Amino acid sequence: MSNIENTIDRIQELLENAETEQQLREELNNFHEADLAGIFQLLKPEERLACFLKLNEEKAADVIEYLPAQLQVEILGDIDETLASRLISKLPHDDAADVLGDMEEDETEVYLEKLPEKFSSEIRELLTYNEDTAGGIMNPLVLTVAHSMSVKDALDTIRIKAEKDNMELYYVYVVDKQEHLLGVVSLRTLLTTPAHLSISEIMWRDIVKVHVDDYQGHIADIFMKYQFNALPVVDQYNRLKGIVTWDDVQDIVEEETTDEILTSSGIVTDLGDEDDDILTGSLANSIKARIPWLFITLIGEFIAVSVTNKYDHTFTALPVIAAFMPLLAGLGGNIGTQSITLMVRGMSTGQVTLSSGWHHIWKETFTGISIGFIFGILVMLVTWGWQHNVQLGLIVGIAMALNMTIATMIGTCTPLILKKMKIDPAVASGPVIATTIDVVGLAVYLTLVTWYLISV
Amino acid sequence: MSNIENTIDRIQELLENAETEQQLREELNNFHEADLAGIFQLLKPEERLACFLKLNEEKAADVIEYLPAQLQVEILGDIDETLASRLISKLPHDDAADVLGDMEEDETEVYLEKLPEKFSSEIRELLTYNEDTAGGIMNPLVLTVAHSMSVKDALDTIRIKAEKDNMELYYVYVVDKQEHLLGVVSLRTLLTTPAHLSISEIMWRDIVKVHVDDYQGHIADIFMKYQFNALPVVDQYNRLKGIVTWDDVQDIVEEETTDEILTSSGIVTDLGDEDDDILTGSLANSIKARIPWLFITLIGEFIAVSVTNKYDHTFTALPVIAAFMPLLAGLGGNIGTQSITLMVRGMSTGQVTLSSGWHHIWKETFTGISIGFIFGILVMLVTWGWQHNVQLGLIVGIAMALNMTIATMIGTCTPLILKKMKIDPAVASGPVIATTIDVVGLAVYLTLVTWYLISV
Repeated sequence: MSNIENTIDRIQELLENAETEQQLREELNNFHEADLAGIFQLLKPEERLACFLKLNEEKAADVIEYLPAQLQVEILGDIDETLASRLISKLPHDDAADVLGDMEEDETEVYLEKLPEKFSSEIRELLTYNEDTAGGIMNPLVLTVAHSMSVKDALDTIRIKAEKDNMELYYVYVVDKQEHLLGVVSLRTLLTTPAHLSISEIMWRDIVKVHVDDYQGHIADIFMKYQFNALPVVDQYNRLKGIVTWDDVQDIVEEETTDEILTSSGIVTDLGDEDDDILTGSLANSIKARIPWLFITLIGEFIAVSVTNKYDHTFTALPVIAAFMPLLAGLGGNIGTQSITLMVRGMSTGQVTLSSGWHHIWKETFTGISIGFIFGILVMLVTWGWQHNVQLGLIVGIAMALNMTIATMIGTCTPLILKKMKIDPAVASGPVIATTIDVVGLAVYLTLVTWYLISV
Repeated sequence: MSNIENTIDRIQELLENAETEQQLREELNNFHEADLAGIFQLLKPEERLACFLKLNEEKAADVIEYLPAQLQVEILGDIDETLASRLISKLPHDDAADVLGDMEEDETEVYLEKLPEKFSSEIRELLTYNEDTAGGIMNPLVLTVAHSMSVKDALDTIRIKAEKDNMELYYVYVVDKQEHLLGVVSLRTLLTTPAHLSISEIMWRDIVKVHVDDYQGHIADIFMKYQFNALPVVDQYNRLKGIVTWDDVQDIVEEETTDEILTSSGIVTDLGDEDDDILTGSLANSIKARIPWLFITLIGEFIAVSVTNKYDHTFTALPVIAAFMPLLAGLGGNIGTQSITLMVRGMSTGQVTLSSGWHHIWKETFTGISIGFIFGILVMLVTWGWQHNVQLGLIVGIAMALNMTIATMIGTCTPLILKKMKIDPAVASGPVIATTIDVVGLAVYLTLVTWYLISV
């Protein structure tokens, strides 16, 4: 961390002095493109632009590849259009399509017309796919060989294609004349097989593939399950349209995890428009994303208020009873949230399934009872000592023990029930369960208090 | 989902009937190993074992590779020792070391002695590394060529090595006679370069590498940043010891994400012993993991109680005031949690940095004020209509607006301050901030109420 801050300081120093321009140019061009992308994200916009213009073109295109979408569009918008289109034409197809897709429509058109014709028409095709599907994230340049070739011909073809198109070598896909996907061979197999054998004899026919319209979450699941480096993407006629590689999936996984985490805390992540990144998007979106679940909490808490309000005579008789409400609600909410989080995360990693559900319910219940017992006794002793009132200590202690046990059970069972009902447990869990725990916890506590008041 | 459930039903049906044994055997062996691993996780232990014993050896070893650690040990412990060691010897080195490392120490020794000598000594070396470091996750079989070779020699070497050792081909590393790492060449470069050139002329010398003792979190960060398929692992003398591939990193990223999520909800994820997986571990661990932050919440909520308790005369005079406390605490906690979650997640994906901190503080504050305003008015109107008391409506409404604004600000600033102080924001954020919001929110509300009561 302090390392990159030193680098930033150094760059800013060099930027301020016209005499050190050549030195800055050299130092910047010596960084790895991934490091530069990291540095650029920490610079101010005008510093960023000044530094970017000091990069040679190859390096500049490489850096664009590693930058987040927002900065890609910012930088390309700030530089000369001809330079920008030259840089875009040096990007891998999928990255170029992403950059152009993030611009305003008329801007996209301007760049598409400046790009080489073949490249431009390939990008146009990519832009027709929904950006959250395989078609939207795939790279259309795939290394293919014909099923009728010999191993020797295939290796020769690969040599020529890989050189010309600057293609990554993952697997080599086997297609027929109409580009139908027939099989796959690894480079290792090609290199270690007698040269005269035919590709169709050595190819692996049982291919795991995805469809251009498959959603990215599904693609990420397949990558995680089979642990491939790349997956072929086909259209409805089984024609090979591109490949999706693990680094594309990396971004998807990060995005999906963020959605899962934000959703659990009651933030709506899919606002149904392009600018739906809550952190970097507009203020209006930020408000829209947060109101729905807060509103539901509001209704729930009004129920809590109306339950509590029934005990107004209790508060008049024994006002200290009211003072202990935050303690009960706070700890109940906390232990309940722990249970919800464990269950929801366990479901998304696959450790918790419907069939292992009972096991987790038992375990969590015992955990809740044990912790409830410990905290009940603690709270009883503290309250007794502080308020010099053993009965109050007993009531608060017993309420605490019950409350924590019930909160754990609600937090454990609700996600399982939602899952059984085929509702995403992350969506409804957090705020609703917290409110339910509030209502139930307070009701238990105030009922106990009333029994006590009646009995004395 | 229903698909895999059908499969399970089908398998259980075939298992019950001795006549269908051959059919079951065929069907099981036709599944992809990743699918089988998924199926095995849903079967009961005795069904799992029965099915496993019907697989041919190649398939059985492949399935072991995909199973979670717990089931690997369970299955290998249940089958014949000789078969188990044959299966282990078919695993990639890193997986074999993981399996053996998860067993009891004397068991590990039994298997190591049954394994082929070379394999066994390589595994012994792997077992000396901490399992959370590069040494613990790397595969020691790396494809290397000598820097003095020509491209033609290198390709011939690769053909022989790849065939013999069943090695994955990612990059080809270049070493000297003492195995010092000098450079890297891609297969693509080798295939497209004139055969007479020397490797040292075409290799890339500026290598990103990790050290055997580097922790897995650091390795995952490097993978995410540079987007490589594989990274070389070296010892302190720069000797090449192995490679880490992206599928190893996949598991690390999932583990780290789980830790981040659980930590944010106040669960201690590092209990400092081997059995520290909270979901699958022992009941005692589950309790130990959850008590520390609950205890801190307990202290915080006792502060809330002592603040609230100062207003006991208020509750006697106007008991309905107590009834509205859960509403204020609940919504303040909720909107505060949303802010914390956004900030903590933003920090871990890199969208929120210390330098962009002020921007987020402003934006969140405006969000808090806007939502606070909307909810303040809503709450005021509902309370007024319900309790027929416009003053009460005004007090609760204003308290709500202030409370939500303050909660948003606390939730946004605290993670940034913790980060500035170099404390992991995920660790301290959730429970502490929730409690702080409770205390501050109730104090604001009750102060407003007191002003009102004094003024009338």
